[in-house]
Amino acid sequence: MRFSRAKAVSDPISPNSRRVWITLLEKGLEFELVAVKLNGEQFKPEFLAISPFHHIPALVDDGLNMVESLAILDYLEAKYPQPAMLPSDTKDLAVVRMVELVTINELLPATTPLFPLMLGLPGGDPEKIEQAKQKVSTVLKFFETLLDDRPFFGSQTITLAEPVAGTVIPWLPGGGVPLNHYPKLSAWCARLTARPAWQETEATPKMIETLKSRLQTMISKSAG
Amino acid sequence: MRFSRAKAVSDPISPNSRRVWITLLEKGLEFELVAVKLNGEQFKPEFLAISPFHHIPALVDDGLNMVESLAILDYLEAKYPQPAMLPSDTKDLAVVRMVELVTINELLPATTPLFPLMLGLPGGDPEKIEQAKQKVSTVLKFFETLLDDRPFFGSQTITLAEPVAGTVIPWLPGGGVPLNHYPKLSAWCARLTARPAWQETEATPKMIETLKSRLQTMISKSAG
Repeated sequence: MRFSRAKAVSDPISPNSRRVWITLLEKGLEFELVAVKLNGEQFKPEFLAISPFHHIPALVDDGLNMVESLAILDYLEAKYPQPAMLPSDTKDLAVVRMVELVTINELLPATTPLFPLMLGLPGGDPEKIEQAKQKVSTVLKFFETLLDDRPFFGSQTITLAEPVAGTVIPWLPGGGVPLNHYPKLSAWCARLTARPAWQETEATPKMIETLKSRLQTMISKSAG
Repeated sequence: MRFSRAKAVSDPISPNSRRVWITLLEKGLEFELVAVKLNGEQFKPEFLAISPFHHIPALVDDGLNMVESLAILDYLEAKYPQPAMLPSDTKDLAVVRMVELVTINELLPATTPLFPLMLGLPGGDPEKIEQAKQKVSTVLKFFETLLDDRPFFGSQTITLAEPVAGTVIPWLPGGGVPLNHYPKLSAWCARLTARPAWQETEATPKMIETLKSRLQTMISKSAG
């Protein structure tokens, strides 16, 4: 495992990793992608020297080791400011920051019971799924009010809010949460998934199959 | 409950709220502090209109409703840039962002089993406490390497890293994690707790007693 200018990614299904990958692409940066398999490789001393909590993604750039995807995005924005991915207006910035943090702290944890459905597997406890859908819809309503007549959150051009929320929300219809009640969010999703950075980082059918069988093993173990 | 320029806080024991309070004080801003009691008051329609996920803290400023403490800190920095609380050097900024996010995503979740000890109550499962101490020490080692000969993380003056990590780390010795192996962090802690913004927002003995009895009820319920 060697790192020059690189980032460590498990697979693009991990939104934590994919948001860094998309940002590197949107900024047109050169980088080397290093896969760290989460089957034990994350505990190797050379990876722990970069990511002491054995979490992905990590970034090595210009002699600096970085962990925490949102910290990495902010570093990339400061170090490589063109194209700008943070608005200069303070209210617009507030919107971008809220979308980033609400995605991490409210939306992602709420989606856990919907994962099997997203992958086409049978769902678990119907009550938990219903609660998850309720929580997700609270986030979607909030995000819908934060979008105005501009194509992106608080901006005419893509911001850091997009790689963060835009790697989660397009998966929701597959998890049983259609977006047709949220016309602005639906149009925003279509706008993102048409971009080369989204298409290049899309999970392949093979990756989805691998994740499916991993999840099935987990489900059958917890049921047995 | 009326908000002008205000923030909603439960009590200063909540580091999520206290980090916003300290930042407002360090920036010398005028604000009105609005207490939201987490006994149901957070579900009232007037609070949900501001914080749809019924979480604290929230900030209302200049007609803008904000949630998510780290988003609020970034907004305050952009709107009220003096005194500056983010470094301009990109590597220093990377350090500040990592300290903020590692505190939220690694340190705070790891400290949960240490809460009773911090409040002078009997601890729970010794194995869980030992695991918690291990995780906490990984964070402390990491933070110790991020401090250099400057008094604050990546800076000669206080940054946003300080209200975030500096409302958690000073509690650790009370939870059975002494800081004497971390000379830079120890000195940094002493520097912070001597500041008026830390002293003004310190939990009162009465608040600690209230939290203690709440925690004791929870423990006895889960044991029964």
